[in-house]
Amino acid sequence: MIYLNGSWIADDEAKISVLDLSVLRGFGIFDYLRTYGKKPFMLESHIDRFFNSAHLMGMEPVLTKAEIADIVLQGIEKSAFAQTNIKFIQTGGVSPDGFTPSEKQSFFVYFYEFHDFPKEQYTQGTAHRTSRVMRQLPEAKTINYAASITEVVKAQKLGFEDILHTDNVGNIYEGTRCNFYGIKNDTLITANKGILEGITRKVIFEIAKELGIEIDFRFVTTAELPELDEAFTSNSSHEIVPTVRIDSTSIGDGVVGPLTIRFMEEFRKRTLN
Amino acid sequence: MIYLNGSWIADDEAKISVLDLSVLRGFGIFDYLRTYGKKPFMLESHIDRFFNSAHLMGMEPVLTKAEIADIVLQGIEKSAFAQTNIKFIQTGGVSPDGFTPSEKQSFFVYFYEFHDFPKEQYTQGTAHRTSRVMRQLPEAKTINYAASITEVVKAQKLGFEDILHTDNVGNIYEGTRCNFYGIKNDTLITANKGILEGITRKVIFEIAKELGIEIDFRFVTTAELPELDEAFTSNSSHEIVPTVRIDSTSIGDGVVGPLTIRFMEEFRKRTLN
Repeated sequence: MIYLNGSWIADDEAKISVLDLSVLRGFGIFDYLRTYGKKPFMLESHIDRFFNSAHLMGMEPVLTKAEIADIVLQGIEKSAFAQTNIKFIQTGGVSPDGFTPSEKQSFFVYFYEFHDFPKEQYTQGTAHRTSRVMRQLPEAKTINYAASITEVVKAQKLGFEDILHTDNVGNIYEGTRCNFYGIKNDTLITANKGILEGITRKVIFEIAKELGIEIDFRFVTTAELPELDEAFTSNSSHEIVPTVRIDSTSIGDGVVGPLTIRFMEEFRKRTLN
Repeated sequence: MIYLNGSWIADDEAKISVLDLSVLRGFGIFDYLRTYGKKPFMLESHIDRFFNSAHLMGMEPVLTKAEIADIVLQGIEKSAFAQTNIKFIQTGGVSPDGFTPSEKQSFFVYFYEFHDFPKEQYTQGTAHRTSRVMRQLPEAKTINYAASITEVVKAQKLGFEDILHTDNVGNIYEGTRCNFYGIKNDTLITANKGILEGITRKVIFEIAKELGIEIDFRFVTTAELPELDEAFTSNSSHEIVPTVRIDSTSIGDGVVGPLTIRFMEEFRKRTLN
């Protein structure tokens, strides 16, 4: 079910002009959240981030925060899934010069059923491949994944789950749709700039504080991968997923580590409220 | 007039699913050319580049080169403009996971009237602003202009025409939709890697050869801007446009230089055949 510019429509009937700047120029922002049961998780934070993305991209949000929240709650009811994925998108609209964002931008919300991910991701962990492709304006959640998709498809053919955006001196920033964390000597290491600030990441920081785990805000580097005890990624759909290999380097013992399990358990608790 | 997946339709009726990967993930490639009169300029080269973009992005072209050429020629006749802009686009299609390109991708060609650009661009030149935003997979002509658009809108508010993608050591790569050239001591300087290889650029190299002008294939750097005699950009719509200022530095005497005029004239001659 899709809410598009004021109407509720079936998935296969929701259409947009091919001249919309999303199609011609990949110009748009979005945010994504899921429900636990019928309850959206961290809805306000996701809407706040969407507004921040709009600001960074020089876009004026089409709807107010309250209006978006209302549509999200309505859509959860209407779509009636056991659990729901929710993606809201604002695109540049149809522009006279095919480049400058339009005064009349499009907004839609896509509601689709949430299915659990394969258990093995959580019990056995996943492998990531570093890539020199870097995100542009990384603090904004734009729809631009063109280069990332090409890199991920290549990586997946080699048995990796995702890529890690890594600069030319070996600083690891984040995955294509997730934040990245290393653990060394019981300290959590994670980037604090040049990344999208995940909503799950905020929750992880709360958990770290509660558990008394120190956070070292810096890039994990490729050079130190052999010294890491554990690593994981986080996002709003997969929650926390252990990373047990990066390129050809096993992380720690190559199995899911105890602190990662702790974070996964604590995170899940918070989704039950 | 738009050719979309096999049909000819009016501009405002050509629609695509909001779940197409172009909209959800900015995933698509395109190419653009124009006609002089009814004659498409360098059609074969543009189609070849489109196929190269597809290859770099891991996409399978929906149509053959001959089929695309045929649609372009048909569309020029059907749309009946004095001169025509032609843009062909292939998008990732609707994908089950909303990320991996679909087996069934979309293809459309947009025909719209070509209007001359303001004469002043050519007689007085334009100003460019350097930007640290770099293109991703720059050799592929993807639809990803999200960050570029935001940067250009900011630059235009300050009186610049466009940005120049410039890395953190001051190497100038190209504009958002054009190649960039400096001229120093009668030598043409232009990047030879990390850029989209323009079709107009190929013609400029032919002209340089004919005029006996040497080409130094390397990046112009921001540090050497005060030493440049002339600068210009090129693309398939604007042809060759003089650049007379970059950031706060005047190029040469701050007016359109003689070699730039020579290139402009020689290029125009080639469009008359």
